[in-house]
Amino acid sequence: MTQLESCMESLIVIFHQYAKDDGDKKTLTKKDLKKLLESELPNFLKAQNNPKTVDFIMNDLDSNKDDKLDFEEFLPLIAGISLACEKCYNASQRKGKK
Amino acid sequence: MTQLESCMESLIVIFHQYAKDDGDKKTLTKKDLKKLLESELPNFLKAQNNPKTVDFIMNDLDSNKDDKLDFEEFLPLIAGISLACEKCYNASQRKGKK
Repeated sequence: MTQLESCMESLIVIFHQYAKDDGDKKTLTKKDLKKLLESELPNFLKAQNNPKTVDFIMNDLDSNKDDKLDFEEFLPLIAGISLACEKCYNASQRKGKK
Repeated sequence: MTQLESCMESLIVIFHQYAKDDGDKKTLTKKDLKKLLESELPNFLKAQNNPKTVDFIMNDLDSNKDDKLDFEEFLPLIAGISLACEKCYNASQRKGKK
């Protein structure tokens, strides 16, 4: 398996690792999402420095408003954080060249 | 670093590994995209079984039609393939339970 294939597999496995806990087994409840963020994205969560962050994210991602996130609704979180990180990466590369 | 953080880092590093080759150093030309798909997603590319696949993908992802892909334009490819894989994963889980 290539690195990119492993990476996509990890996204799926991590999502389902938290999805299986609570509610139906294929979606994240807010409780599942909170656990996932606390365990998998602790630095991101700390940087927000807001106790309402999980509520905001849940509300933002839950596009069909059924109080749970399927994998398709979860993906924009990964895309959004990756994009923010990539902007930092580009900025740091520019700084390194000066 | 958590597994999910490593995974997002890999997405950025892999993108830039191919972006640095050709044209400006922060975007993928069609030539870069072809190399990335051939090396990182060979199974996906083979499954399409169409010599025009790289053209179709480039055209589909290049939302501002500048003939290159920045990281933001590249992300929907990863999201799309991950989502397709997740549907297969769910189907295989259901099958396993029967």
